[in-house]
Amino acid sequence: MAPPHSFSGIIPYLVTPLTEDERIHAAELARICEHLIGQGVHGLTPLGSTGEGPYLLEADQCTVVQAVVEASGGRVPVVPAVFSRSVKGAIRQAQAFERLGADGIVLTLDSYFPIPQPAVKHYFETVASATGLPIILYTNPHFQKVDLGIELIAELSHNPKFVGLKDASGNTGRLLSIADRCRPGFGIYAASAHLAVSVMLLGGQGLFAGPACVLARENVRLYALCQAGQWTQAMALQKVLWRFSEAFASYNLAACTKAALEHQGFAPGQPMAPQPPLTAEVKRRIGEILDRVQQQAAAIGVQ
Amino acid sequence: MAPPHSFSGIIPYLVTPLTEDERIHAAELARICEHLIGQGVHGLTPLGSTGEGPYLLEADQCTVVQAVVEASGGRVPVVPAVFSRSVKGAIRQAQAFERLGADGIVLTLDSYFPIPQPAVKHYFETVASATGLPIILYTNPHFQKVDLGIELIAELSHNPKFVGLKDASGNTGRLLSIADRCRPGFGIYAASAHLAVSVMLLGGQGLFAGPACVLARENVRLYALCQAGQWTQAMALQKVLWRFSEAFASYNLAACTKAALEHQGFAPGQPMAPQPPLTAEVKRRIGEILDRVQQQAAAIGVQ
Amino acid sequence: MAPPHSFSGIIPYLVTPLTEDERIHAAELARICEHLIGQGVHGLTPLGSTGEGPYLLEADQCTVVQAVVEASGGRVPVVPAVFSRSVKGAIRQAQAFERLGADGIVLTLDSYFPIPQPAVKHYFETVASATGLPIILYTNPHFQKVDLGIELIAELSHNPKFVGLKDASGNTGRLLSIADRCRPGFGIYAASAHLAVSVMLLGGQGLFAGPACVLARENVRLYALCQAGQWTQAMALQKVLWRFSEAFASYNLAACTKAALEHQGFAPGQPMAPQPPLTAEVKRRIGEILDRVQQQAAAIGVQ
Amino acid sequence: MAPPHSFSGIIPYLVTPLTEDERIHAAELARICEHLIGQGVHGLTPLGSTGEGPYLLEADQCTVVQAVVEASGGRVPVVPAVFSRSVKGAIRQAQAFERLGADGIVLTLDSYFPIPQPAVKHYFETVASATGLPIILYTNPHFQKVDLGIELIAELSHNPKFVGLKDASGNTGRLLSIADRCRPGFGIYAASAHLAVSVMLLGGQGLFAGPACVLARENVRLYALCQAGQWTQAMALQKVLWRFSEAFASYNLAACTKAALEHQGFAPGQPMAPQPPLTAEVKRRIGEILDRVQQQAAAIGVQ
Repeated sequence: MAPPHSFSGIIPYLVTPLTEDERIHAAELARICEHLIGQGVHGLTPLGSTGEGPYLLEADQCTVVQAVVEASGGRVPVVPAVFSRSVKGAIRQAQAFERLGADGIVLTLDSYFPIPQPAVKHYFETVASATGLPIILYTNPHFQKVDLGIELIAELSHNPKFVGLKDASGNTGRLLSIADRCRPGFGIYAASAHLAVSVMLLGGQGLFAGPACVLARENVRLYALCQAGQWTQAMALQKVLWRFSEAFASYNLAACTKAALEHQGFAPGQPMAPQPPLTAEVKRRIGEILDRVQQQAAAIGVQ
Repeated sequence: MAPPHSFSGIIPYLVTPLTEDERIHAAELARICEHLIGQGVHGLTPLGSTGEGPYLLEADQCTVVQAVVEASGGRVPVVPAVFSRSVKGAIRQAQAFERLGADGIVLTLDSYFPIPQPAVKHYFETVASATGLPIILYTNPHFQKVDLGIELIAELSHNPKFVGLKDASGNTGRLLSIADRCRPGFGIYAASAHLAVSVMLLGGQGLFAGPACVLARENVRLYALCQAGQWTQAMALQKVLWRFSEAFASYNLAACTKAALEHQGFAPGQPMAPQPPLTAEVKRRIGEILDRVQQQAAAIGVQ
Repeated sequence: MAPPHSFSGIIPYLVTPLTEDERIHAAELARICEHLIGQGVHGLTPLGSTGEGPYLLEADQCTVVQAVVEASGGRVPVVPAVFSRSVKGAIRQAQAFERLGADGIVLTLDSYFPIPQPAVKHYFETVASATGLPIILYTNPHFQKVDLGIELIAELSHNPKFVGLKDASGNTGRLLSIADRCRPGFGIYAASAHLAVSVMLLGGQGLFAGPACVLARENVRLYALCQAGQWTQAMALQKVLWRFSEAFASYNLAACTKAALEHQGFAPGQPMAPQPPLTAEVKRRIGEILDRVQQQAAAIGVQ
Repeated sequence: MAPPHSFSGIIPYLVTPLTEDERIHAAELARICEHLIGQGVHGLTPLGSTGEGPYLLEADQCTVVQAVVEASGGRVPVVPAVFSRSVKGAIRQAQAFERLGADGIVLTLDSYFPIPQPAVKHYFETVASATGLPIILYTNPHFQKVDLGIELIAELSHNPKFVGLKDASGNTGRLLSIADRCRPGFGIYAASAHLAVSVMLLGGQGLFAGPACVLARENVRLYALCQAGQWTQAMALQKVLWRFSEAFASYNLAACTKAALEHQGFAPGQPMAPQPPLTAEVKRRIGEILDRVQQQAAAIGVQ
């Protein structure tokens, strides 16, 4: 395993398998982790948006982290997402995950009221000082009201506790500006399947995303092509893989990822209510698209 | 006390007093409730946005509800806010508050991923069927990603469990459309100080809002003027009271309400981190505005 | 006629009748003006959004203003909308309309790039200094990128060239704040059918809006009720009239107003392309709603 | 010159030089065109957003196009932007520019009221059928209310009149989806300096943008690196060039581009009022950044 403060490559956002009465299905989660490690992924992130982290009660979040840490058994780093509105809540989660054996956290600030950048900074720094784990900053302006500004990210990057940034803005200009300002060695990670190649071309370290949970082998291959400087081939593969993510746009992210895993033989269950379950028809379509994308990826060299 | 399913008049959104280490200061909360009941308010809502409900851990939420129920002692209804992303979490809160003696709940759906109206409906109906408490629907498009559409509100209004709506859209056209469609007897409540008179003129039942925690007597008078059909005087008073709310726009709502209560001799403490505390200078300004507004209200007949 | 710097009451936003090949149908416009004056309206505004002003070439705009000025013959003031991105363009329009005999203008700043408040101020003041006409400020944050801030409106209100504000924010808090800061005598006008009573209750002077082009008599009655302090009856009438505006929400504003006038026996033609024309079925529905609303208004005393 | 229906490479968005009294300074515009052609650009676009097209009166727009056509003298294609709310206005502009000798147009739909996709389609197709010029579709969701959906772009791409798309969404996922659906040979052009390399890596034809008006030689070099498949070097150069565009974010685009050209010895004048002119201090800063970026570009091989 890489030293815990260095994350790179393809790190899938895991789903959270649920039983019919909405309890954590830890055994199925372990099966999915085993499968992904077999496909060559470089880390595992439970409790992200794909993993419905923001919908889970704290006790359930701990059950999830424990299951993933045990399933990995130290083979790849486990980097759960921490998502909280209060400093107090974030510290509780971070410390609980540290005790359970996590190798790092992806730290997000959720917010009810908008707050100014100094308060955002206070959140990240106070949580960092309360845990020994390396932290990946995460900001998603599409789902959160609080954003990490470019200057604040640059400033935080000089605190060695913060080892990288997963930026879901989808804004390549913002990424160029951030890459230009952060300390050398600070990681930049793609958050979306359509940006993976661009992020790696500009010096990024990898991809944290839900679709890698379903197209793990293909994403590992994409990463290898980027590492080898084969940019045209990497882009050709990304174009194919994007057809899968594209199909998600009209549906709930967790529901789609669960449907795709079901098509691959797993039993992740439904998304947590009130997120609506998919119809059998939609699930069938997702399965078809997944099969086609995997065939197309195979046709250009990924098997 | 009014029968539990009938809420009307001025129902302040309570702050949540905190100690320096961010524990609930229940005694101070009780003091504030006693004061408000003395000023004539018609109900009490803990855990709303003013009360930092979305920032509190579940155990702290229960401590708050218990303190308010005990302080009221049955004199005015206690209607805590329930705010959750999952059906499961909302039911846990609603049932806990019911056991603690609440008289109703203000029910909100928070959401990470946007969801369609049938899923929104599922949330409200499933929670309603799991509690014996009357429910006030609450939707705030400024802070939440999920909205209750006009048609859905009209449909829910025919379920007797739902006794009214607090609508924070600030859109008077939407309010007219809703009032036109809901079952007779379904309550419409203003959520903002600038809409109180308009809402009551169109047949509304009252006001659920944070500023009523600070200007309780004045809002009780405003309600009485509306009840008496003295609309011009009511609007004149509302104009004066709005000067106070206006001053809040640049700052954090919970922090401002706490500062105003501090100026009135209470000790509500700071807002929960990372919400920034106000500077002494800003607190002083809020105190000045509050004094001036109370003098102006007195000058037009409220003492 | 009232002195040109004093506008009050119901001032319909006129449609712009078009022939099949998209030329101005001046005779039909004159017929509509004659009808509205007969219904008791207190002024006429061509070239607003309802009048597709932003879609018309400059020569066509002049044809429209000339037709309305001639039709009014000095009986009611004519206050065309000026809508431009550049100071230069706005001055050209204002001066042309002044030469054609307009009594005032409703002045809007359209903008491609967002600009700061001092540049917004520069626009309004430079145009004001280039025309002898009294000016009503207009700002519509739903359709424009540039807003007039509260402080800027207050400042402009002290320039006697600016005689009032039509505010389409729909935000009653903003209206209270503005009314509290502007010079005495500065007019506040409702821009939406759902706000007319609230605006007049807080001291406003009238309504500038498209639906008054179709429900002229009813809106004149609404204004009289407000003038007489009969707020409950005014609100009851507004509730009825709102059912008509509500039906517009799903369709193009100009197209709906034209359809309603067609139902009343006028020939306003289609909206300018690419705004889509309504289907016969939608036109039929609009006619039905209009009939029903007029019956309901009659039932509570407007005939 | 390439056949008129085939545009590729670096096509700067030209500024519109103005005299002090806001008339078109055609001679200076010709000087800038001559300079850019000397730097190797592959086409010229007047009247885009950088060129303040939406702020200009129609007669001034024609003066601009005529000056650019004459300056080019057939050496590079001239592709002015057409920007209108109505079909009628767009056709007038397109036909006027065609008569003046333009080689194509970049066609945009501005809109006051939002309209549905079939109406958007009607606009583009009707304008296309009224001109013999090849058309580049342009859509900018940041500044316009009407968007071209992915399916509509794909459909229009099969009409040979539409030769490509300049997409300013900045959304690489959207670009992948579009590239996947359009007819072979349909051009995709970057609209932003931060996306140029990514767009060309995914098969795009070039860049239409304002900064290429100031950093022409460097952008021509960037294009050559992409053509040669030297992606890492291209990205390194793009990182350097981005530092210039980044500096624009806080100011008005036209004003900044004019200031940079002034620093290079041209006399483009001020932006059209009410767009605010830059202070001397800001102009000085822009000059400094421009010098530094050109030095950094030279250091990695562009001179």
